[in-house]
Amino acid sequence: MDEQQRTRRPGGRSARVGAAVHQAVTDLVGERGYGGFTVSEVAARAGVADTTVYRRWGSLEALLTDVTLTRLNARSPMPDTGDLAGDLHTYAAAVAREISGPEGLAVLRLTVALSGSGPEGLRLRDSFLAERARQMQSMLDRAPARGERHLDALTVLDHVMAPMYIRVLFGAGPLTPEYVAGLVDRLLG
Amino acid sequence: MDEQQRTRRPGGRSARVGAAVHQAVTDLVGERGYGGFTVSEVAARAGVADTTVYRRWGSLEALLTDVTLTRLNARSPMPDTGDLAGDLHTYAAAVAREISGPEGLAVLRLTVALSGSGPEGLRLRDSFLAERARQMQSMLDRAPARGERHLDALTVLDHVMAPMYIRVLFGAGPLTPEYVAGLVDRLLG
Repeated sequence: MDEQQRTRRPGGRSARVGAAVHQAVTDLVGERGYGGFTVSEVAARAGVADTTVYRRWGSLEALLTDVTLTRLNARSPMPDTGDLAGDLHTYAAAVAREISGPEGLAVLRLTVALSGSGPEGLRLRDSFLAERARQMQSMLDRAPARGERHLDALTVLDHVMAPMYIRVLFGAGPLTPEYVAGLVDRLLG
Repeated sequence: MDEQQRTRRPGGRSARVGAAVHQAVTDLVGERGYGGFTVSEVAARAGVADTTVYRRWGSLEALLTDVTLTRLNARSPMPDTGDLAGDLHTYAAAVAREISGPEGLAVLRLTVALSGSGPEGLRLRDSFLAERARQMQSMLDRAPARGERHLDALTVLDHVMAPMYIRVLFGAGPLTPEYVAGLVDRLLG
């Protein structure tokens, strides 16, 4: 933990390495997709040694997971609007915007890639999704204290996130604001 | 059309070639995943010339689409039980069984692969999914004549298929019979 905190202190060399490696991964994913590049290519583009990447992340899969989770947390944080409907509408709209963009299917692509890359890939997939599920459950757990329904994160996954993901993946979009709001209303109604 | 019928007549050399190529693709997908092999490797394993594959299917992507659609139609045909609830419960249970198996995520993997492989991939993805949507819509269109609700195939995709796909993809299974039946009941209720 001390080691992790030290390697991630803002402004240090380690933070610059982290940012350069994350940027290199983001660029390579955009150019070639998941699975289309190696740790050596990431390291070369970031201007660091291969061993720096392996020491910090352990594997290409772990690095991809870290980059995607960091990006998701920055771009689609869990909202806190003061009521359940507001939180869900805000979150659903943010996810719809994110997955409709050019890099939109990043999470699904990563999940498919990890699911097909053995036990380590499955472990990373599970820890990645557990972290996002934990964040969403925290948002949902605030509702009962306000006299609102207590929803399970999996129910939101089933009826709000899954339809949007599959519509984009299957090219059955676009995700209009009316469609996205309708998914949330249907869940709450 | 004559040409196509002739090349696909049962029992002929063309049918044997088709079966051998399909089996080679299925084996290679199982061993290496989508994107892990070339037309030449398929041809070699099927014991045919590369040009035979290109002449008949045009591209690796088109071949993969043909194999997956053939497999889906054979293993998860649209049911006709005489009522809407029966049709949906039967179909949902068949899909759940199919996607819970070792090759379960074939459709999603193919869709992800096609989505990332340029305009030809997107065209194939769209024609593939349109064919399955057309089959499902035919099943749903029988309902109003029996005094039942008229559902849109996209609504079934959103609230029955999408949750199952995403649960398996995210490792949030297993898809128990109760869970699958609950998705259909919720849609109809």
